[in-house]
Amino acid sequence: MTTTTESPSTTDTAPAQGEELRAQVHDAARRGQRAAGDLALANRDAKDAVLHAMADALLERDAEILEANGRDLETAREAGLPGSTVDRLTLTTDRVASMAEGLRTVAALPDPIGEVVRGSVLPNGLQLQQVRVPLGVVGMVYEGRPNVTVDAAGLALKSGNAVLLRGSSSAERSNAALVSILADVLRAHALPAEAVQLVPCHDRASVQHLITARGLVDVVIPRGGAGLISAVVEQATVPAIETGAGNCHVYVDAHADLDTAVRILLNSKARRVSVCNAAETLLVHRDIAEEFLPKAIAALRSAGVTVHGDKRVLDVEGAGASNVVAATDEDWETEYGSLDIAAAVVDSLPEAVAHIAEHGTGHTEAIVTADLRSARQFSARVDAAAVMVNASTAFTDGAQFGMGAEIGISTQKLHARGPMGLPELTSTKWLAFGDGHVRPAG
Amino acid sequence: MTTTTESPSTTDTAPAQGEELRAQVHDAARRGQRAAGDLALANRDAKDAVLHAMADALLERDAEILEANGRDLETAREAGLPGSTVDRLTLTTDRVASMAEGLRTVAALPDPIGEVVRGSVLPNGLQLQQVRVPLGVVGMVYEGRPNVTVDAAGLALKSGNAVLLRGSSSAERSNAALVSILADVLRAHALPAEAVQLVPCHDRASVQHLITARGLVDVVIPRGGAGLISAVVEQATVPAIETGAGNCHVYVDAHADLDTAVRILLNSKARRVSVCNAAETLLVHRDIAEEFLPKAIAALRSAGVTVHGDKRVLDVEGAGASNVVAATDEDWETEYGSLDIAAAVVDSLPEAVAHIAEHGTGHTEAIVTADLRSARQFSARVDAAAVMVNASTAFTDGAQFGMGAEIGISTQKLHARGPMGLPELTSTKWLAFGDGHVRPAG
Repeated sequence: MTTTTESPSTTDTAPAQGEELRAQVHDAARRGQRAAGDLALANRDAKDAVLHAMADALLERDAEILEANGRDLETAREAGLPGSTVDRLTLTTDRVASMAEGLRTVAALPDPIGEVVRGSVLPNGLQLQQVRVPLGVVGMVYEGRPNVTVDAAGLALKSGNAVLLRGSSSAERSNAALVSILADVLRAHALPAEAVQLVPCHDRASVQHLITARGLVDVVIPRGGAGLISAVVEQATVPAIETGAGNCHVYVDAHADLDTAVRILLNSKARRVSVCNAAETLLVHRDIAEEFLPKAIAALRSAGVTVHGDKRVLDVEGAGASNVVAATDEDWETEYGSLDIAAAVVDSLPEAVAHIAEHGTGHTEAIVTADLRSARQFSARVDAAAVMVNASTAFTDGAQFGMGAEIGISTQKLHARGPMGLPELTSTKWLAFGDGHVRPAG
Repeated sequence: MTTTTESPSTTDTAPAQGEELRAQVHDAARRGQRAAGDLALANRDAKDAVLHAMADALLERDAEILEANGRDLETAREAGLPGSTVDRLTLTTDRVASMAEGLRTVAALPDPIGEVVRGSVLPNGLQLQQVRVPLGVVGMVYEGRPNVTVDAAGLALKSGNAVLLRGSSSAERSNAALVSILADVLRAHALPAEAVQLVPCHDRASVQHLITARGLVDVVIPRGGAGLISAVVEQATVPAIETGAGNCHVYVDAHADLDTAVRILLNSKARRVSVCNAAETLLVHRDIAEEFLPKAIAALRSAGVTVHGDKRVLDVEGAGASNVVAATDEDWETEYGSLDIAAAVVDSLPEAVAHIAEHGTGHTEAIVTADLRSARQFSARVDAAAVMVNASTAFTDGAQFGMGAEIGISTQKLHARGPMGLPELTSTKWLAFGDGHVRPAG
């Protein structure tokens, strides 16, 4: 999942152009702020009506979308972009329908805005409430997939936020067509079209201007490869939320049911290999290694998975297994995104926890065990967004967690951790109601 | 509240020294990470016992603290530091007792760690819980007050976090004495002394190393003047929480009870002028300006407050009032921290809201009104950490809000907004318990 194609850099911009571009991005942010002021006051009925109308409009105008997408695809092929990039960029009638369906799903979710998070009457009679409010202006920096444009717009709208979308230049025409349709619907519903805006995508410096617009943009969320995400997080002065990197582990405890372990391992690794919640390393307790590893390796072989084993894995399995190769130090750090998995034998649960602490990315870690003490120890000691006990790592997902939709999976600890749905796109505000309350001296 | 004395800069460090200092700070952070691993598993009884023992030790060894503080004070006086700085630095038996009491207050607060924030059984039977966990390693960057050292250590300990304290070099010996006592107590209770560590404070570059130690430090919280805070927030690559700047407004609506308005205005402005929740601007609806302003200005005069009025305020009051001067554009932006207040007449509630949006810092905004519609409009439209309806701005405070203690008041929207107590020093973790659950394809 690593890519550097979108890594922000300002070196390709002359200073004069740079200033103009900065003004352009900042002006968009200011328009977004004004739009956010109106959106914050829109009630659920109004927002849901817009979401459904947006879904209808995407379906009605899909020819327009596909035509724009066709031009993007032509440019991409001419530029010789890799097949996988072209595939991510491609829209079809089905994919447009699925974007529309996504908007309807968001409409069906409860409105997070106005939710009372905490509240009490203080001893002095002051009535105190902490309520959810929108963040304000959300900046999204993402890569080729045009569906992110619609997903992000829908989630931002429902949570009362304006959104600035900085997609890939390869999807420029597709994104422009989509945003033009969404903006038309906003206008038709007497809501500001500036609630959903594209940021210029030709110049990499626009990313830089967006992520340093402190006071104009409230949060930036990068979505894409590891290179994009770390560049944004390192260079942003606007608060940023780190998403996505997933070097996930499955630890098979001494007390594991071995068939369960094989099933969870296979699902975690091979259900879909390109997703961030896929397992990348198998850790096996030494007490069951001899019995478990041959089963596991055979099952992985049937699924087409190559095992990068440490010395102890190789010792157990012998040089015989056709899908086992020797692991290097790098394997423990690798998010393969392919039909590969690293594997090591550990002496104890604490050794598994230590391995995960050293090499994990804090995404999802799983233990397979029948022992309550092991389950409790592992879930208490492992520091990650999600810990699975006897369940596949594949469950770390907004829809699976019942959030309906997600804008990304946060691997940082501040603000949001794990799948981010609507509540994670909000802040809070304290409201205090008094009868002329003043605070005593002292 | 503006100061530049601690503004981080690396220019005064030679490169070789810089590398050594970076290694020192990073090593401290690594020791902190290990300590945090142990602390995260400590239960409430253990943590509270340590907090009480720390309070006892501060009282028992106060001679040691006062002696070290005396040496800091001597250096400060020799260096000709201003009286207010020397005052903030000064410890007395009473101030040490009050730090000890602060630790007992924290011990009495509920343990946030392990709290189940959300939880449900998913349709597939997977049992899901979101629980509070420590952030890990918290970096504090602060100025002269040695009590912050103890407050921060207590709150961090109770919330299961290790803390790296980067205080002012003027308080070096005081902070060293305090941390040495706290560390002794940790060791005596078989907890890692590295849970509370000082970061070298002589070289400003140590701030830089602390706030850029991504992966080693989980959050940095600056506490002090505006210069310190904005420098840390701008330069940090570790997630930072912005605290403190408070340009707070009191808006007196057309429908206000005028005596209530005077009482709230006086309390908001003059109860304590140096705090961030003090009011700095008065906004008055034109319909009651003629009646209200003379009362308000007379009351402010009695309290020794100078009013920086706009043209309409001057028109109402005439040139006669001895405590009224003409406001300049700068006044609307100024956090006086003194017996001064800006004042303007507005035509409407929306104009008041717009003034606050333009000049406020998102801390605390108050409305005085008897009209429900005005109260609802103001609290919905004003974007701030706290909105007071018929109550003093002085209530925005952790202790007043029932949090028991606070580590600062966040004026940003991400993670925490308003007074930050123990829950704001935590992250969350998803725990899923299955029976061999795997996710279907698709």
